[in-house]
Amino acid sequence: MSRQMHFGLFLLGTGSHIAGWRQPGAMDTFQDIEKVRQIAATAERGLFDLIFMGDNLNADPASHPSYTARLEPMTLLAAIAGATRHIGLGGTVSTTYADPFSVARAFASLDHISGGRAAWNAVTTSAPAAAANFGTQHPDHARRYERAGEFVDVVTGLWDCWADDAICADRASGVYIDPAKVRPLDHEGPFFKVKGPLNIGRSPQGHPIISQAGGSEPGQMLAARTADIVFAVVQDLAEAKAGYDSLKARLPAFGRHPDEVCVLPGVMPVVGRTAKEAREKLNDLMQFVDTSNALGMLSERFGHDMSAYALDGPIPDLPEADTYKSFTGVLLSKARRDGMSLRDLYNLVAAARGHWVLCGAAEEVADTLQQWFEAGAADGFNVMPPYFPGAFDDFVDLVIPILQERGLFRTAYEGATLRDLLGLKRPANPNF
Amino acid sequence: MSRQMHFGLFLLGTGSHIAGWRQPGAMDTFQDIEKVRQIAATAERGLFDLIFMGDNLNADPASHPSYTARLEPMTLLAAIAGATRHIGLGGTVSTTYADPFSVARAFASLDHISGGRAAWNAVTTSAPAAAANFGTQHPDHARRYERAGEFVDVVTGLWDCWADDAICADRASGVYIDPAKVRPLDHEGPFFKVKGPLNIGRSPQGHPIISQAGGSEPGQMLAARTADIVFAVVQDLAEAKAGYDSLKARLPAFGRHPDEVCVLPGVMPVVGRTAKEAREKLNDLMQFVDTSNALGMLSERFGHDMSAYALDGPIPDLPEADTYKSFTGVLLSKARRDGMSLRDLYNLVAAARGHWVLCGAAEEVADTLQQWFEAGAADGFNVMPPYFPGAFDDFVDLVIPILQERGLFRTAYEGATLRDLLGLKRPANPNF
Repeated sequence: MSRQMHFGLFLLGTGSHIAGWRQPGAMDTFQDIEKVRQIAATAERGLFDLIFMGDNLNADPASHPSYTARLEPMTLLAAIAGATRHIGLGGTVSTTYADPFSVARAFASLDHISGGRAAWNAVTTSAPAAAANFGTQHPDHARRYERAGEFVDVVTGLWDCWADDAICADRASGVYIDPAKVRPLDHEGPFFKVKGPLNIGRSPQGHPIISQAGGSEPGQMLAARTADIVFAVVQDLAEAKAGYDSLKARLPAFGRHPDEVCVLPGVMPVVGRTAKEAREKLNDLMQFVDTSNALGMLSERFGHDMSAYALDGPIPDLPEADTYKSFTGVLLSKARRDGMSLRDLYNLVAAARGHWVLCGAAEEVADTLQQWFEAGAADGFNVMPPYFPGAFDDFVDLVIPILQERGLFRTAYEGATLRDLLGLKRPANPNF
Repeated sequence: MSRQMHFGLFLLGTGSHIAGWRQPGAMDTFQDIEKVRQIAATAERGLFDLIFMGDNLNADPASHPSYTARLEPMTLLAAIAGATRHIGLGGTVSTTYADPFSVARAFASLDHISGGRAAWNAVTTSAPAAAANFGTQHPDHARRYERAGEFVDVVTGLWDCWADDAICADRASGVYIDPAKVRPLDHEGPFFKVKGPLNIGRSPQGHPIISQAGGSEPGQMLAARTADIVFAVVQDLAEAKAGYDSLKARLPAFGRHPDEVCVLPGVMPVVGRTAKEAREKLNDLMQFVDTSNALGMLSERFGHDMSAYALDGPIPDLPEADTYKSFTGVLLSKARRDGMSLRDLYNLVAAARGHWVLCGAAEEVADTLQQWFEAGAADGFNVMPPYFPGAFDDFVDLVIPILQERGLFRTAYEGATLRDLLGLKRPANPNF
């Protein structure tokens, strides 16, 4: 079989567009599990590989509505596990503000609950405001990544404390666990001391899938060493291709094959039956963007109060951001390349929180995705609908069938686990 | 309507009896969500108020099988929320090894997901071995309770950061959140600094239900001040009555009415159609108890290695335990009262992890529960089946109908939330 695309759905209740919820008929909450279940059903109808939830650890009413009032990822994903059968369930839990024993446990549990469909998005938290909810100081970028690297190692180490066949539950002898098949981790590092073993057996995938989204140098190194999926932030093909190549080139140094990591650039598709209809939909959305919601979002992304600058003036010289380091780099380079004003930049961020917006007729959208895929700039895409359910339905109903006709996307689910969907092997346990 | 009983189901996959899983036909895993869903369906058929999950934070293969390999509470409860409609979903999360922002968030999320059925069992962790999984030292009993008190206050404070109507989502004006209806917590105490607000709106119950299980002096004070449900560890009626009265007497000092706390002693029912059949069932279970599994459990409960003592000798003088403080007190006092040997004591702990075992024909079991209830020793019971599904089916099918006939238990679910089932008011928000 020739290479096929993989699709993630970026789940944000009110949509990725900052004002998507204002669209007539759009979902206007991220606290209603029944509506989330309907979205999950649509994603599964569209044969997506996974549903993926970002997260944030502080509420800022001036920011994106679904960053401010939202369901918590692990409870949400567990709740939709029973309402779905095939699709992967990916959630963000921060390596900056969580502890590895709890995280290893929660994802192993979700993997058992979902029959092998769990994925952990191992991020570092960018927003310094999160620290105030945990009574601590926000570590700088470099330290966040040092901690993240050790955190991921502890988590995968805990997943390997149990042999797959450690639980024997032999009624006759009364032996429940074979003690030779469970061992502690005994980890001691600069950030963590974790004895182990975990108090849950090895899960269906062996290791739940690990995803990462950091585009900075330490982010890319961590992804190359540990990630199965990488979510990329991109604005054009050449940049996407360069990022893709750069990441894949790092893999052999870690004894990994380029096919072992699935790179999914984020894209907000605005799909019409015609190009004109698509453009009208995007214009509809953009009319809801105003200074108050857009500048809040922009300031959050740049880690810097942007309200002091002239809206129609040039992009100001900003100090290098410690938040969303590579993200702001991608945006600023696009803005300078295209001679954008600050207003143009905030429109871009408001549209898709800074991600790539792809607007066009279904054929055009499919063409562009195919072009990127075949150019070696992506292994698939993380789809960020501007709002639900309409804008996501459009993608599933109009674009997916075209990709299927072209042989670029699956026409049925095959395999039982998310690893199967992604074509990734179940990791052997090095301890047993 | 006259006063009626409340029932919790203590969910432990392999059953509360240490060797319950060896019973023919018994469930032998705590990692299979489909089997847990079947148990939840039985509990809902039995019109139980809630399902309740304990937790532990370390694996000890010599201890109870379901303490060693288990699903994590929040993901498990969220997963069964969609498979149930009425029953409360209670889970333990430790105040010793978690942080209040994450806990407030997870239970608010579960409360939204379940339509108002979440309950948090706010325990302190007894087992010192947990500390090694979190790279820290285990705090002593007094300090654990100081921390727990502040922890609970932070959590309830975070739940009250949002007015019930803070999210307006007004499409016309674009106002999503009324900023006057969200406020930070700005908590600073000896253990925690938490700014808030939470990043999730106030949940259906206002506050998810809070339960506690500590029987020590600080445990009782914390329960009297903050708990809606108290799980009591008892061995006989007089002791249960004394504990019940003692707890209820503490409430007025906190401005609370005795009816605002529901006291549920734990009981392992072994039910037969006749007393003889019940006794045979218990004997069947007890034959599976052996030195290796029972002494492990006993040592864990007493925080002290018990393998050095003569099995048929008297109960040794033990140093006062820092783990399960009141729990060990209850057991030792029963053991000394009844002139037990160490073997008798380990049989008792192996049977129901130290809880009260009630063995008899269905009528006898109903009689005893009624006697305790009417004597003012209980508001209901936390039912701890020795194994699933058979032993729980017995209780639901044989005992519940008798209690219903006597007017002592509901015959249908009424109300939408767990608060409604328990007859507890939704707390007003003091901030708005």
